[in-house]
Amino acid sequence: MKRTTEKNLMVFSGRAHPVLAEEVADLLGTQLVPTSAYDFANSEIYVRYEESVRGCDAFVIQSHTAPINQWIMEHLIMVDALKRASAKRITVVMPFWGYSRQDKKHRGREPISARLVADMFKIAGADRIISVDLHADQLQGYFDGPVDHLMALPLLSDYIKDKYGSQPLAVVSPDAGRIKVAERWAARLGNVPLAFIHKTRDINRPNETVANRVVGDVKDRICVLSDDMIDTGGTIVKAAEAIMNDGAAGVIIAATHAILSDPAVDRLKNSSAVEVVITNTLPVPDEKQFDKLTTLSIAPMLARAIREVFEDGSVTSMFDGHA
Amino acid sequence: MKRTTEKNLMVFSGRAHPVLAEEVADLLGTQLVPTSAYDFANSEIYVRYEESVRGCDAFVIQSHTAPINQWIMEHLIMVDALKRASAKRITVVMPFWGYSRQDKKHRGREPISARLVADMFKIAGADRIISVDLHADQLQGYFDGPVDHLMALPLLSDYIKDKYGSQPLAVVSPDAGRIKVAERWAARLGNVPLAFIHKTRDINRPNETVANRVVGDVKDRICVLSDDMIDTGGTIVKAAEAIMNDGAAGVIIAATHAILSDPAVDRLKNSSAVEVVITNTLPVPDEKQFDKLTTLSIAPMLARAIREVFEDGSVTSMFDGHA
Amino acid sequence: MKRTTEKNLMVFSGRAHPVLAEEVADLLGTQLVPTSAYDFANSEIYVRYEESVRGCDAFVIQSHTAPINQWIMEHLIMVDALKRASAKRITVVMPFWGYSRQDKKHRGREPISARLVADMFKIAGADRIISVDLHADQLQGYFDGPVDHLMALPLLSDYIKDKYGSQPLAVVSPDAGRIKVAERWAARLGNVPLAFIHKTRDINRPNETVANRVVGDVKDRICVLSDDMIDTGGTIVKAAEAIMNDGAAGVIIAATHAILSDPAVDRLKNSSAVEVVITNTLPVPDEKQFDKLTTLSIAPMLARAIREVFEDGSVTSMFDGHA
Amino acid sequence: MKRTTEKNLMVFSGRAHPVLAEEVADLLGTQLVPTSAYDFANSEIYVRYEESVRGCDAFVIQSHTAPINQWIMEHLIMVDALKRASAKRITVVMPFWGYSRQDKKHRGREPISARLVADMFKIAGADRIISVDLHADQLQGYFDGPVDHLMALPLLSDYIKDKYGSQPLAVVSPDAGRIKVAERWAARLGNVPLAFIHKTRDINRPNETVANRVVGDVKDRICVLSDDMIDTGGTIVKAAEAIMNDGAAGVIIAATHAILSDPAVDRLKNSSAVEVVITNTLPVPDEKQFDKLTTLSIAPMLARAIREVFEDGSVTSMFDGHA
Amino acid sequence: MKRTTEKNLMVFSGRAHPVLAEEVADLLGTQLVPTSAYDFANSEIYVRYEESVRGCDAFVIQSHTAPINQWIMEHLIMVDALKRASAKRITVVMPFWGYSRQDKKHRGREPISARLVADMFKIAGADRIISVDLHADQLQGYFDGPVDHLMALPLLSDYIKDKYGSQPLAVVSPDAGRIKVAERWAARLGNVPLAFIHKTRDINRPNETVANRVVGDVKDRICVLSDDMIDTGGTIVKAAEAIMNDGAAGVIIAATHAILSDPAVDRLKNSSAVEVVITNTLPVPDEKQFDKLTTLSIAPMLARAIREVFEDGSVTSMFDGHA
Amino acid sequence: MKRTTEKNLMVFSGRAHPVLAEEVADLLGTQLVPTSAYDFANSEIYVRYEESVRGCDAFVIQSHTAPINQWIMEHLIMVDALKRASAKRITVVMPFWGYSRQDKKHRGREPISARLVADMFKIAGADRIISVDLHADQLQGYFDGPVDHLMALPLLSDYIKDKYGSQPLAVVSPDAGRIKVAERWAARLGNVPLAFIHKTRDINRPNETVANRVVGDVKDRICVLSDDMIDTGGTIVKAAEAIMNDGAAGVIIAATHAILSDPAVDRLKNSSAVEVVITNTLPVPDEKQFDKLTTLSIAPMLARAIREVFEDGSVTSMFDGHA
Repeated sequence: MKRTTEKNLMVFSGRAHPVLAEEVADLLGTQLVPTSAYDFANSEIYVRYEESVRGCDAFVIQSHTAPINQWIMEHLIMVDALKRASAKRITVVMPFWGYSRQDKKHRGREPISARLVADMFKIAGADRIISVDLHADQLQGYFDGPVDHLMALPLLSDYIKDKYGSQPLAVVSPDAGRIKVAERWAARLGNVPLAFIHKTRDINRPNETVANRVVGDVKDRICVLSDDMIDTGGTIVKAAEAIMNDGAAGVIIAATHAILSDPAVDRLKNSSAVEVVITNTLPVPDEKQFDKLTTLSIAPMLARAIREVFEDGSVTSMFDGHA
Repeated sequence: MKRTTEKNLMVFSGRAHPVLAEEVADLLGTQLVPTSAYDFANSEIYVRYEESVRGCDAFVIQSHTAPINQWIMEHLIMVDALKRASAKRITVVMPFWGYSRQDKKHRGREPISARLVADMFKIAGADRIISVDLHADQLQGYFDGPVDHLMALPLLSDYIKDKYGSQPLAVVSPDAGRIKVAERWAARLGNVPLAFIHKTRDINRPNETVANRVVGDVKDRICVLSDDMIDTGGTIVKAAEAIMNDGAAGVIIAATHAILSDPAVDRLKNSSAVEVVITNTLPVPDEKQFDKLTTLSIAPMLARAIREVFEDGSVTSMFDGHA
Repeated sequence: MKRTTEKNLMVFSGRAHPVLAEEVADLLGTQLVPTSAYDFANSEIYVRYEESVRGCDAFVIQSHTAPINQWIMEHLIMVDALKRASAKRITVVMPFWGYSRQDKKHRGREPISARLVADMFKIAGADRIISVDLHADQLQGYFDGPVDHLMALPLLSDYIKDKYGSQPLAVVSPDAGRIKVAERWAARLGNVPLAFIHKTRDINRPNETVANRVVGDVKDRICVLSDDMIDTGGTIVKAAEAIMNDGAAGVIIAATHAILSDPAVDRLKNSSAVEVVITNTLPVPDEKQFDKLTTLSIAPMLARAIREVFEDGSVTSMFDGHA
Repeated sequence: MKRTTEKNLMVFSGRAHPVLAEEVADLLGTQLVPTSAYDFANSEIYVRYEESVRGCDAFVIQSHTAPINQWIMEHLIMVDALKRASAKRITVVMPFWGYSRQDKKHRGREPISARLVADMFKIAGADRIISVDLHADQLQGYFDGPVDHLMALPLLSDYIKDKYGSQPLAVVSPDAGRIKVAERWAARLGNVPLAFIHKTRDINRPNETVANRVVGDVKDRICVLSDDMIDTGGTIVKAAEAIMNDGAAGVIIAATHAILSDPAVDRLKNSSAVEVVITNTLPVPDEKQFDKLTTLSIAPMLARAIREVFEDGSVTSMFDGHA
Repeated sequence: MKRTTEKNLMVFSGRAHPVLAEEVADLLGTQLVPTSAYDFANSEIYVRYEESVRGCDAFVIQSHTAPINQWIMEHLIMVDALKRASAKRITVVMPFWGYSRQDKKHRGREPISARLVADMFKIAGADRIISVDLHADQLQGYFDGPVDHLMALPLLSDYIKDKYGSQPLAVVSPDAGRIKVAERWAARLGNVPLAFIHKTRDINRPNETVANRVVGDVKDRICVLSDDMIDTGGTIVKAAEAIMNDGAAGVIIAATHAILSDPAVDRLKNSSAVEVVITNTLPVPDEKQFDKLTTLSIAPMLARAIREVFEDGSVTSMFDGHA
Repeated sequence: MKRTTEKNLMVFSGRAHPVLAEEVADLLGTQLVPTSAYDFANSEIYVRYEESVRGCDAFVIQSHTAPINQWIMEHLIMVDALKRASAKRITVVMPFWGYSRQDKKHRGREPISARLVADMFKIAGADRIISVDLHADQLQGYFDGPVDHLMALPLLSDYIKDKYGSQPLAVVSPDAGRIKVAERWAARLGNVPLAFIHKTRDINRPNETVANRVVGDVKDRICVLSDDMIDTGGTIVKAAEAIMNDGAAGVIIAATHAILSDPAVDRLKNSSAVEVVITNTLPVPDEKQFDKLTTLSIAPMLARAIREVFEDGSVTSMFDGHA
């Protein structure tokens, strides 16, 4: 009894950021699989798919935004349900990898939560991860299986080049450790000059910074200050100030992941930045929108990556070999 | 180079219900290991132990109360940190097993989240689980390792026998499926009569009930209505009404896990029950306290189980072979 | 070098109940894969497939009947041979899940053999399990992978409705704990009344019961007494007597798994039941046949489930969402 | 809270060969842990330990004799129960490794059941295996953990040397492939001459032989014909005849594992062998005893190995480095 | 969104023996996937595929020749890179299984390195192994998955039969333990007579032999002395001498794996053998070539096996059921 | 049968750098366990321990130096042998983690060999890793178990402070990405000024650099140029030149891992550096010694870490919480 094997792409979304998932599904010419999901009275999550998922090539999209533990758990439960419902292959699409900053022990007796997240998705049944702009490239090695690592750089830099390319530009890295990413930015914007901020972090609260100094020449240039994420915005806003103090003509902040925890919005609004360009890997609710904020959709990139994965194409080719 | 091997008991607590953990540590003649734990701005959890835990026999206590996903994740992260900090053995103490009601697929394409929870603790590094009054005994089989299953029955029944034993009693099971537990109650209270409620559940929302009928004779008796947990309280309060309508002299509600999701407190307060007896496996905040509510501490039982585990004693003997 | 992928369904049978497997294969329009299987002098089992199985979608059918350890081991060995012979996917079809009643620790220091069975099939190479009417729904969670859980209810109830539907019927559950199954029976037979037997089990020998009492009104009705299995038949026959003593017009015993250990046949023959309706998930040898016994074949349901699995259809849809 | 760690040796026995286990326990100065074990009506096995086993160093002895699948399954279930009851370390003592002859694929599409047995004990919870005279040394590599491989050679050869050492001896290997073992025999008996039988096996039924020819000089010597096991005895008895036909003064058959499947006893009784020397790794029931049969107890060797394992001594030293 | 599934065969080669891999690819009508591979200054290996391998059915060929640890590590790294680059299935083709002679503990406290090799390929991501003439058949059981075991016997024996078949032949096994292989040779050459060498090995250096004696009649016959491998050649050359001393008409040495460690070439050149017939499972560099050496290519057999695996054909059928 | 548990520290060494291991053993007051280790003719490695290792707490030291694949494989084989010989706990001591620079995919279709190394040690049987100055902190997360991460900083900086502390110092990081380490150096040397080199790497050959620029003020200062490793020395020597060109008073090169691949020694000898201070995590053969080279022994730090691990002390405390 022989049959030709068929594969069937199905896209699923958790409740954290359905608008993004819908856009992805739309770009793929399909629709999100109808899914029941709600919280019980004691905050336990319930999930059930309303259609057969047997044998499908499943892509489960969830943004790891606050309340992040809730959405990671929902993501895990969705994977478990797919495994038990006989999905053929399960790809976890997490545009932002939750707990990615806890990727090492800064001090003894700390967890490595980023690895724990990878292990939990593995045990739940994930075959693959698709993520965007990992906090550290080493995170790819935390998952025992393929990780497709996408980069928002082309998306962000093309927008900025189109809009500001006629003026003298510079790229500024907010952190000496991320200077290699800044180099790619500089190349992409047309081999513009490069600078960076020298800062020190308090070991107890690694997402708050304490000191800033610009290294490199930014005078009279529009400076693109790019980072992988904006959480409370303290670091990046202080960096923008430092740049302006050094005589820059203007600052554009660009970041992939707009976490925007309080008081990020106030800080950014009141900052010296001309424009803040982000993607929608994480949802930005209406109350966090402000005039200078431009959101570019990551959905086309996710959709293309999903299509390449589904059709055994190449994700690496989307980034000229760099992924 | 030879040494006599020593073992060192250390007790840890998450932030969900520290009072319980402190009481346990106190009963064991020790103190909770000092632990830094807080939330980052984007709600990611950070944990670090302030003392060396190398080689210890670790017992990590966390109550899986709302917001349950946050506390389960903290529990998992604590286990990961212990594993990486060289604890010798890690026992997860979860007085209430989160997601224990999702222990089977009621319908196709549902997860089995209770198994997922077991698997996640395993992958994080847990060697053993201690829990109280599992929703289904089969949950023990979900963990690949020893599960010490404690029962609050002796605690609850001794209290009730002491206080009401001089009056004619009956035991009422709120669910035909839990009648075997009710039989143990009846035996323990002195072979008193037994009755139960016949009810039907809506398959879509398994923690809400729709119909009640008393089976057995409760007339003129003080009825002990016992369940493993009280969530929104709808089921148990309707059961109490049905019992009173059948001519009972009074109803005492007894339950191990006081989830008490809204509107449980209002329902219980306004119910016909004389007294509601619970344990503190889950925290009951001040605003949920009410006159008729009696909370018995599960800490002595947890402390004794931990001591038996640490000293290679017998947990089974605590329950006359039934554990 | 590209090829279109084909999938190839192959059905295998152990020696416990080949008639059932042949019927399944026949309904699928195929034949059992020729297999050498015999016992060595010291009772070790030898198995070899006589045809190439490379790349096939294998369904391995074995009934876990007495001598149950022998047939489970043969089942495991067959899976091992398929794994090593490059079957692409291996589905274990065990109409009755051996050791399913040992699904929890009734007392301390007992095994959970039902989980052990699941783990052994996993390690041998099983990707999926298909089973019928699990003793407890939680067993689905014992296997780390998809479990397709079929239900004989439609098969059994349709037969009874056809034959007895013109008379006043009632459904009686032999155990308060199985009342939810009885509710499905009652609905399927046309919302007929419901009753059940209250019984107590001896904790040392959990498959023997000691006491019976009918709860609900069965007077003058043909009562359908349904259970998941009949082992020695003691429970169910005493239940039938209790029902007749309460004035029922007749009793029909219905069960999925006809274990029929001695002295089940004598008990059933001499019982007050009008008819005993079972399926052939387990073989019933000629010497165990008797007049009142009606065996319905589970083969069409297994064949359909296998086809749905092979063709990425839906098993859940076979049971209106309840599987 | 610190304690000195203690370890506690406990010896357990299945029902296959309790006399051997009792002798081992006795030699260790302890007693078998009281264990309930019986078969349910449908032949499922039930096991429970009557004492706390928490934290113990468990040695579980079972002889894999016929009905071999039943006893292997009981062995597995005992391991599962120990794991769930918190034994600290579980050593599986299987004097004869069941299915050890199925240690490779003689032809395509066969299982490798000896590896399956190792994997099943691993998944059930075994930490270590102790076994005697493995059919192939490679079996040690089938278990992912330590395997203590004991050899009955000192026991058997000392007995024979004591009794027959004054006469001219020769050692005969019944199989060219086992000649290295025969060399150890020859050395141990005082560098006596060596011969062997050349035989061919039918590929379909690997435990039956078809042809025999003596290679080497056995004339006028008492020949020790040694093998790892005697199953139906056909091979060894034909070998004895061939030796006698070549002019030997007598034949002594020596084997570790006395499987003695029919018609082994008749063959041996009527054979030309003067004496048949075996060990009790497998039970020999009374009806299989015969005059020429001498059984040496393997219990002292098992007891010593268990003691070495328990006390972190050396098993290798028991065999001059060869284990 | 449905697609027909396609599979795509891709062949990869390490740097140990690219000529063999190219021949295999050529016979399959394809080309080796372009691969960057070089050593860093500190001898760490770097590998990268120059084309997308997503979704492919990968066959990775590497000969485990000296420096064997380097080539095994390169093989492992290639598998890791394929896994992370989303190959669908990874087949490790190791014509000679490195460390295959370390397949058991000859003495206590030795490793079982052959099992370690299997485990390392498994953890790196291998789904299947294809190998030729394993040193012991039990090695198949060391890998947890399918192992396709090819045999060079048809290749070697057909060549010899063609060239020498008109003369009286005999087959000589260099080791009593390999006599079953010699029997297959004898059958394939036309049921010619059989003999073998009796030898003893030094337990400390298992690949050097110390003594030789011919068993069987070789007088006036061309003797085919066949072994699985030639390492330093000491054993086989001494065997050839012993055969000639017994009056043989000539000796042809045949072996699958030509390790040819020093001083094998000198020994073989100067030996009494007429011809040495080997395959190219391992590379033989120019400086090791000599007049009497005939190398048959194993590539057609590997290519056919790969094709059968890719197309779900039968590898067993290539060897009349013996694989 | 009860015993007090004893633990027994045993130290093992591979052949890559025995002098270091001997020094460690000596500092621990013990001796290396006598071990046979040699290469077979075909370069396969053989290992055997000459003493019983049963129940020991094993620390296996091997330096991953060139030929690195050989020494990693020997390390793995040693772990396998310990596992099978019943060591109780196995700690892999790799002062330099081989392949640590392959810790991420710089481009698509590359391996993550550093994770592969961690996985291979895990599957071989390692329970823990001790390593020094990981190339990226994230490597700790690559091993599923505790990793004790030691830092040579105190050792190196104390030496330099003692010798040069009276002169004006500065710390220079050779790479912007390692500036956080340089900050710790600066603090430890007495809060001296900080500078770093800005460089770009060729993506194809990541251990060769192409450009250098000093950022920060080094004029008239003795500059400590510190890195985790010196491989070919190109980067660091060019950095030293750049520093001198910027007017520094002198350069001291400090590095933990002295890989010293050609032409590192020539470059360093001829460089402008006053002194090159390294540790002996890797062996430096006599022919690589030169006048300016100072080697500090890492043995005391390894010995202390091993002692803390053995005695359940604290490794974190050795580094003021930073490990």
